[in-house]
Amino acid sequence: MPDIRHRVVISAPLESVYEAVSTKEGLSEWWTRDGVRGESSEGSRLGFFFGKPEPAAVMEVTRLSPAGRVQWSCVEGAEEWVGTKLAFDLAEQEDQTVVLFSHADWRGASEFMAHCSARWAYFLLSLKSLLETGKGTPFPDDLRF
Amino acid sequence: MPDIRHRVVISAPLESVYEAVSTKEGLSEWWTRDGVRGESSEGSRLGFFFGKPEPAAVMEVTRLSPAGRVQWSCVEGAEEWVGTKLAFDLAEQEDQTVVLFSHADWRGASEFMAHCSARWAYFLLSLKSLLETGKGTPFPDDLRF
Repeated sequence: MPDIRHRVVISAPLESVYEAVSTKEGLSEWWTRDGVRGESSEGSRLGFFFGKPEPAAVMEVTRLSPAGRVQWSCVEGAEEWVGTKLAFDLAEQEDQTVVLFSHADWRGASEFMAHCSARWAYFLLSLKSLLETGKGTPFPDDLRF
Repeated sequence: MPDIRHRVVISAPLESVYEAVSTKEGLSEWWTRDGVRGESSEGSRLGFFFGKPEPAAVMEVTRLSPAGRVQWSCVEGAEEWVGTKLAFDLAEQEDQTVVLFSHADWRGASEFMAHCSARWAYFLLSLKSLLETGKGTPFPDDLRF
């Protein structure tokens, strides 16, 4: 099954990057400020809001390892997202952190998947900006494309 | 074989986007200002330079259709790039142009491919910026990550 995979290098300690991808506060500063609700703990669910009353996606948190791994399974949202698996794998490299992001197990390589691929790269650069400059570009401050 | 696929919507006429992805002048304004050499015509080769005496990639131009399709085959460059196929497919949508980009036929889903995926999304947003604001962020003005 086709996957989206992006690699981004961030000039920040692994612990800081981990906090930004594993806590509701962190996620709200680079992905969506409109709302991250629920609980970020293994087995719990996180809902992500993008300007509508219902969440655009609900993720089950399947792995939270401070050593540098966050995994989600999408349980609600766009039809093509349900059943997909997302992961942030972090690795220290000198004084930087390498983020290997994947959004895997899509049923097919659709145009929507290509849209999401570019969107994920954009938001990963928002994550980088947040950690390096203190300011990300989460929804609704994001560039639309 | 795994592919990189991105979709980006640009507020510009298809003809302008086509010029930016099919001419040396256009390509130099959003991908690399360091040098695009050769000839952009079907069957010819284009070399792309990124700060080194030798090109980072040489593409054989396999298709140039002003209706909205540019295809290249990578014939020299990074080992993982040689043999891959690249395409820009353009479609009009109201007064915008949808760019469906693909970099296909990678031998495997490596970390380098994930790096290139994020880099391509970044440069496609540079293409969007060029067409919408008159200014892209080609190498060497690009963000490094």
